[in-house]
Amino acid sequence: MLNSVNDLLKINGPTPIFVRNQNTGEMEYRIEKDTMGEVQVPADKYWGAQTERSRNNFKIGPAASMPLDIVYGFAYLKKAAAYANCELEVLSEEKRDMIAQVCDEIVQGKHDDQFPLVIWQTGSGTQSNMNVNEVIANRAHEMAGKIIGAGEKTIQPNDDVNKSQSSNDTFPTGMHIAAYKKIVETTIPGVEQLRDTLRKKSKDFAKVVKIGRTHLMDATPLTLGQEFSGYVSQLDHGLKALKNTLDHLSELALGGTAVGTGLNTPAGYDVLVAKYISDFTELPFRTADNKFEALAAHDAIVESHGALKQLAVSLNKIANDIRMLASGPRSGIGEINIPANEPGSSIMPGKVNPTQCEALTMVCAQVMGNDVAISVGGTQGQYELNVFKPLMAANMLQSAQLIGDACVSFEENCAEGIEPNYKVIEQMLNNSLMLVTALNTKIGYYKAAEIANTAHKNGTTLKEEAINLGYVTAEEYDEWVKPEEMVGSLK
Amino acid sequence: MLNSVNDLLKINGPTPIFVRNQNTGEMEYRIEKDTMGEVQVPADKYWGAQTERSRNNFKIGPAASMPLDIVYGFAYLKKAAAYANCELEVLSEEKRDMIAQVCDEIVQGKHDDQFPLVIWQTGSGTQSNMNVNEVIANRAHEMAGKIIGAGEKTIQPNDDVNKSQSSNDTFPTGMHIAAYKKIVETTIPGVEQLRDTLRKKSKDFAKVVKIGRTHLMDATPLTLGQEFSGYVSQLDHGLKALKNTLDHLSELALGGTAVGTGLNTPAGYDVLVAKYISDFTELPFRTADNKFEALAAHDAIVESHGALKQLAVSLNKIANDIRMLASGPRSGIGEINIPANEPGSSIMPGKVNPTQCEALTMVCAQVMGNDVAISVGGTQGQYELNVFKPLMAANMLQSAQLIGDACVSFEENCAEGIEPNYKVIEQMLNNSLMLVTALNTKIGYYKAAEIANTAHKNGTTLKEEAINLGYVTAEEYDEWVKPEEMVGSLK
Amino acid sequence: MLNSVNDLLKINGPTPIFVRNQNTGEMEYRIEKDTMGEVQVPADKYWGAQTERSRNNFKIGPAASMPLDIVYGFAYLKKAAAYANCELEVLSEEKRDMIAQVCDEIVQGKHDDQFPLVIWQTGSGTQSNMNVNEVIANRAHEMAGKIIGAGEKTIQPNDDVNKSQSSNDTFPTGMHIAAYKKIVETTIPGVEQLRDTLRKKSKDFAKVVKIGRTHLMDATPLTLGQEFSGYVSQLDHGLKALKNTLDHLSELALGGTAVGTGLNTPAGYDVLVAKYISDFTELPFRTADNKFEALAAHDAIVESHGALKQLAVSLNKIANDIRMLASGPRSGIGEINIPANEPGSSIMPGKVNPTQCEALTMVCAQVMGNDVAISVGGTQGQYELNVFKPLMAANMLQSAQLIGDACVSFEENCAEGIEPNYKVIEQMLNNSLMLVTALNTKIGYYKAAEIANTAHKNGTTLKEEAINLGYVTAEEYDEWVKPEEMVGSLK
Amino acid sequence: MLNSVNDLLKINGPTPIFVRNQNTGEMEYRIEKDTMGEVQVPADKYWGAQTERSRNNFKIGPAASMPLDIVYGFAYLKKAAAYANCELEVLSEEKRDMIAQVCDEIVQGKHDDQFPLVIWQTGSGTQSNMNVNEVIANRAHEMAGKIIGAGEKTIQPNDDVNKSQSSNDTFPTGMHIAAYKKIVETTIPGVEQLRDTLRKKSKDFAKVVKIGRTHLMDATPLTLGQEFSGYVSQLDHGLKALKNTLDHLSELALGGTAVGTGLNTPAGYDVLVAKYISDFTELPFRTADNKFEALAAHDAIVESHGALKQLAVSLNKIANDIRMLASGPRSGIGEINIPANEPGSSIMPGKVNPTQCEALTMVCAQVMGNDVAISVGGTQGQYELNVFKPLMAANMLQSAQLIGDACVSFEENCAEGIEPNYKVIEQMLNNSLMLVTALNTKIGYYKAAEIANTAHKNGTTLKEEAINLGYVTAEEYDEWVKPEEMVGSLK
Repeated sequence: MLNSVNDLLKINGPTPIFVRNQNTGEMEYRIEKDTMGEVQVPADKYWGAQTERSRNNFKIGPAASMPLDIVYGFAYLKKAAAYANCELEVLSEEKRDMIAQVCDEIVQGKHDDQFPLVIWQTGSGTQSNMNVNEVIANRAHEMAGKIIGAGEKTIQPNDDVNKSQSSNDTFPTGMHIAAYKKIVETTIPGVEQLRDTLRKKSKDFAKVVKIGRTHLMDATPLTLGQEFSGYVSQLDHGLKALKNTLDHLSELALGGTAVGTGLNTPAGYDVLVAKYISDFTELPFRTADNKFEALAAHDAIVESHGALKQLAVSLNKIANDIRMLASGPRSGIGEINIPANEPGSSIMPGKVNPTQCEALTMVCAQVMGNDVAISVGGTQGQYELNVFKPLMAANMLQSAQLIGDACVSFEENCAEGIEPNYKVIEQMLNNSLMLVTALNTKIGYYKAAEIANTAHKNGTTLKEEAINLGYVTAEEYDEWVKPEEMVGSLK
Repeated sequence: MLNSVNDLLKINGPTPIFVRNQNTGEMEYRIEKDTMGEVQVPADKYWGAQTERSRNNFKIGPAASMPLDIVYGFAYLKKAAAYANCELEVLSEEKRDMIAQVCDEIVQGKHDDQFPLVIWQTGSGTQSNMNVNEVIANRAHEMAGKIIGAGEKTIQPNDDVNKSQSSNDTFPTGMHIAAYKKIVETTIPGVEQLRDTLRKKSKDFAKVVKIGRTHLMDATPLTLGQEFSGYVSQLDHGLKALKNTLDHLSELALGGTAVGTGLNTPAGYDVLVAKYISDFTELPFRTADNKFEALAAHDAIVESHGALKQLAVSLNKIANDIRMLASGPRSGIGEINIPANEPGSSIMPGKVNPTQCEALTMVCAQVMGNDVAISVGGTQGQYELNVFKPLMAANMLQSAQLIGDACVSFEENCAEGIEPNYKVIEQMLNNSLMLVTALNTKIGYYKAAEIANTAHKNGTTLKEEAINLGYVTAEEYDEWVKPEEMVGSLK
Repeated sequence: MLNSVNDLLKINGPTPIFVRNQNTGEMEYRIEKDTMGEVQVPADKYWGAQTERSRNNFKIGPAASMPLDIVYGFAYLKKAAAYANCELEVLSEEKRDMIAQVCDEIVQGKHDDQFPLVIWQTGSGTQSNMNVNEVIANRAHEMAGKIIGAGEKTIQPNDDVNKSQSSNDTFPTGMHIAAYKKIVETTIPGVEQLRDTLRKKSKDFAKVVKIGRTHLMDATPLTLGQEFSGYVSQLDHGLKALKNTLDHLSELALGGTAVGTGLNTPAGYDVLVAKYISDFTELPFRTADNKFEALAAHDAIVESHGALKQLAVSLNKIANDIRMLASGPRSGIGEINIPANEPGSSIMPGKVNPTQCEALTMVCAQVMGNDVAISVGGTQGQYELNVFKPLMAANMLQSAQLIGDACVSFEENCAEGIEPNYKVIEQMLNNSLMLVTALNTKIGYYKAAEIANTAHKNGTTLKEEAINLGYVTAEEYDEWVKPEEMVGSLK
Repeated sequence: MLNSVNDLLKINGPTPIFVRNQNTGEMEYRIEKDTMGEVQVPADKYWGAQTERSRNNFKIGPAASMPLDIVYGFAYLKKAAAYANCELEVLSEEKRDMIAQVCDEIVQGKHDDQFPLVIWQTGSGTQSNMNVNEVIANRAHEMAGKIIGAGEKTIQPNDDVNKSQSSNDTFPTGMHIAAYKKIVETTIPGVEQLRDTLRKKSKDFAKVVKIGRTHLMDATPLTLGQEFSGYVSQLDHGLKALKNTLDHLSELALGGTAVGTGLNTPAGYDVLVAKYISDFTELPFRTADNKFEALAAHDAIVESHGALKQLAVSLNKIANDIRMLASGPRSGIGEINIPANEPGSSIMPGKVNPTQCEALTMVCAQVMGNDVAISVGGTQGQYELNVFKPLMAANMLQSAQLIGDACVSFEENCAEGIEPNYKVIEQMLNNSLMLVTALNTKIGYYKAAEIANTAHKNGTTLKEEAINLGYVTAEEYDEWVKPEEMVGSLK
């Protein structure tokens, strides 16, 4: 007999209620109840009433847009909470193990189709928390050999799975776990892979002297290796900046519960649960310095995404340079060759479109946009809660994934195959008027300038005019004008 | 016998080449060829070599992220091109009809799983164009009763499907079709639905006098209807601004081909193909005023998205106001009630979280971010081509979808059910110190100010202190202090 | 004798109180009073207590950052309000004329040093409204032959100058006046000046056939005039988009007073005051459709700035193209020459840095940033008031000014002097491998491709290899390969 | 006799050429020459031909918009370069000392009116570099007792002042010096001042138990001190993030000269000049790890500004909370009082507008916009140079200044005076329905929920209904329902 709100939450009736298809007799829905009443849930799904309500109330954009990485983050924290609760003697070992087992399955991707909710839901992500709670509870019920919707729940989604938790501290925890993992597993390795290849190229090209360009205009020479060393340095700085943000991101809100005070958590829970999360993820998570910040603000996300945006800025410069350097084949710069991965033109040889540069710079533009979305979301915390959590999480994860993936794609399909076009490089270098500066100390500034001016006017080379004007011999020119001596030794 | 590049493109050999599973003998891949050589394509897919290359070369983010709306836009234009080409006598009626038939199937969603490419590919969307070409050609081959990969292609992806076209003019055309459709079919109706409900509420609440607030501080009164009329006016202006952008968006690049000159198109093609697109979509598309702009810049996307961003700004204000007005139930403002759609708190009645406001404002933040991504992409056209097309298209479509959907969700699940909390409204109004201004003309500014000051100090009402101080009687107070006469008649 | 708050506001008398320099005896400050007490105001300034308080309380960034255009906008509206108040018989003709006279002086720039406040003040701009009120009142007092600070004020800043007004409706009115004027007087003429020159260039260059570039790679030819026509079309569309926004911007909040209800305004005031503003500014201002929107949201600013941002996107593309086309002199593209306005390099001739392009693209980046600041401000209206007014106004005016100025600067110092570098254009065109497509119909696709391939491999020209391979004669080549016939007739 | 380009640069002589006013005979202009010819320079100014050209060619926005902080940064580096050049024996001690003396004057603000250029100039800031060079040279000439424009220059702007330098490495150096100084002298102290006061408030309010709010809705209690501790934690994290960026910002480009190779610098110059800059500024500057990055990219600016943007995000949350908490006086939240700094309303007591919150949040919006401008600029480096330097520098400095100033203003005029409104806090707390959770363990969940439900329905207090329903006595209620025991001990 149902005689309390509490009971209502615990029991879906002594006997399950199902809705069968009128034609086939097949079970289509089961009836789940919550404090607001009955809800029809697809019979083959683990989720319950609250998930289903959210699914119906938030038909915004494509279904299931909430990133699975967040779900996996939740699975880690639910398992950790079960362990901490058990160790602190508020949850049985049996329940702990059942919860942990389902969490493991979730992380293994076995239940990916059980999380139908969208980003554009409650700003606290409450229903995504409930989605995880409900799936764990019902799956555990099933694992216990029972029929979902029938009999008392083996594990209660609220009382057991969500014990010592609140949406308000679980969602930011899941968000930090997901973001941290994505950054260290995808972003950083991707950027490093590209950085390493660019560094190798920088060394390989250390002796390739070429014309420099400032304001897009011809300038004094440098080596192609020096040019690439700038890219390496940008990425090195960007990686350092990104790593600088990880400490803030390693702070977990869990233990703050509803408003940050930790109401309804056993003593020591926040530190312990963070330790378990750290153990299970093998990442250095720790409990947040301040739980009130951790719920009401997501500056850690703002901070880490700021570093991703910096990387986007760097990568945009690099990709832009490379496509300009590779432009041509005849009417561009053409100092380097990049791999041809797709037919650029069915008839024109050498039309190798810089498609990887294009994909990468589009990613950079997206990350710059995402940064604004995240910053706007970050400003809007109110009192004890920021309710732009799913937005911030989704943009963060997208950026981290895209940068990592795009760097790998760019590295494998473009950077790795970059080769100098020696002929063009040499031609442009020797053709350049900037080399005249090398003659200053030999024949004086005025005569040097006269040579350059004449060559510019006649469209000839410096050497031709230097000889024509009688200021130097061919031998002197070759001895005095040595671009390789103008590139210094700076890295 | 294969004896030309051209033949290579037309023929995948006299006999098809398949790769079979070594265990089951089942066909897993077929070999497709292009100018760069052989590619293994999953045997059960219609796509060909170029799609497969792109799929392998751009593993960035989740698969198939290129919006299907773009694919459908392509289907409209491919059909229109077939009709225009046929009318201009460069394509047979038979081929036209086969192409058209597959295009219809695509628009009907029958081949959604045939478009596996990602946003983050060539910035011209070349491979997505080829994906459509290949699917149409192979599906037509199949419809002709032949085996894909075997025999001469019934329809050539390049020579027939892509006739009088280039990626460079098809992608922007598909993008405009998709964006225009999304705006008129999803965004505008969604915003109008919300606007209409807010207008109805504004009329319903026309007599509900309440305290005004400026700087978040108590100010002179207005009606709840007036407050809502401001929201209506915002959305009216936003809709007008959005509609203002549609003319630019109705311009189609098709006919410009590779660089905007229309090379390889029959005379009159550009106007005719736009007419067919207009016919098929029943939307007022026309050929672009200037094809060079239409390929090299996507200011029309920037323009329309600017209007979406304006709507986001408006909606953010509206949703924010509504959640503040509904805050409480005890310790907030509480002047209105909003529907309870999900359990807010299992124990606290009246904890009705403004979840629809949260979803809507998250959408607004996303649109603001997308606007930056689109603007950045828009700035980066180079020479005859902008290669940020997929990025711009994807962000545009996401924003248009999210705003439309979120407005509907907000209208149905929140706005429609807004009711004044008369008791609170009246209490706050009567409690207010601002009403004292009504006494100025009766007892003078100084005495009025003294009443307000005393009430503020004592935490009492104006009426109490007005009587206590002996400046007015209770009857006089009630006659003189009539908030409903302070709200004017402005709408 | 001072016996009421009202008196306190009206009188700084009966005898003025001054603070004299202890050494020189010179008057340094006069004491002004408001409801909060005494304030020392510099003796030589017209402003009063409220301005001085704001000056002291908001030491944020450089002084006097509030744009003078806003002050001038206020002067227009204060004069119009005086006229409307007089016509509606709540202000004497004498006072009207005194107010109008000072307003005229302000608009003439005679009191620019009397407005010391910063953008970063009250978000309603209240103290800037008071600054104008105080300056008008004290200057009128002086014009009446009296000593500022001595005797009863000739004109009351609140009761007379601010009659039928509130900061809440004056600031947005001043903001709209200033923005509208700036757009029609600076932005539009500037953009049109550049557009006209680019259009002239487009016509001048109509026969200059050159290589096209897509993906930065060589593509089929077009004329330089066609290339420039794309720029013209972008600016035409941008101007149209900007003009589309002016209707919203022409709506004036004045008459809404504190919360939009028009409390304390005579009947018909809102329409009449807008008519006077329209008369005085000779611009089509009208009273806002909805005063509640007009105070609580500034979507009109968001809308107009969105169009400025679109122009920035367009201008960025144009300036970028021009600097790339002008790059060199030897190792760039070099198809056009731009004027040399500054010494680019003291020794290298032809190092003409594209400085105007650089200034213009920096302006574009600023406008893109300002757009975010304005959008963020626009989202944050609360209840009856948006308190990001000065921020929105300042960013709007800066963008409108910078775009107009930068277009003029770019037109005069760069665009106007652009000339084709015929030699380079011809060389690159003839050198191109893309021209081979013209041979397709003559010798077949395969032989054409073979020619291109060989030329690419050998670094030779198509003509050379066509002859070498024996497929065409020199005469045939010249007759068949005519780039000027590949550029179509599209504009 | 002028017989070389070099001479032309060195001499404006032998006799000066002046343009005199035809009426007064007073000298109005002097003629300065550069490689492009003659320029009229205002006679009373130290600047020369190149500054004057830029002044005339870039009339974009208000004059002299280039931040003086950049000029001062240049002064430090010019002095340091003179010392390094002298130590490395390429400049005489005499010249070193003259240059150093003028640099000191510049830093002391004695020549602020000598720098008339705008931000919107050459993107390398070349003319601002020349402006400094010219002013130093002419001022030194004057200090040597000579007439500017007459005789051989005592110090050459290019050969002496700019020795071992290029615009390309000086501008980024000046930019880093200015930004670093601004951050450590203005931003960090400002934020720390506010953080310290908020921390003090947090401690002062440690025992003030109040209602918590999530989703703007009533939630479980916390202390006002805990609420403020979240703000402190945000600022602590933000300061840490900002400080993390300083290392990158401490890297100086100087020594890279034109393209990063260090051409024309004596060995060891880059390290030495950085040491001198560090000495003179007393800040830990060092030579950049990679000069190619340091010229071609300004990721250090992007990085530091990202941290400023994070602070803006934090400050926005804090200021927003405070104005909501202070809202009222009657119809808002009203849990805290903030100082009244300006008359909010002449008649309504307690109308204390949160003007400092408004100024601060406007600053935050500006910083968010500036971040986009800086990021866009940062992406656009090309080859060996980024030509968005002045844009990036100006936005960086504005943000750093505004955040520092606004924090101080907010601290002094608002935060410092925040006091709890104990009466309101207590009333709202006791009025709350959330406290019912305290009864769960005493009378069971069901009865507790019934009490809350009844109180919600009747608009009564929990205590009233608890007694009415007969579940607890008044004494029991007071003993069991102790909000102060629900706030935990988390900080």
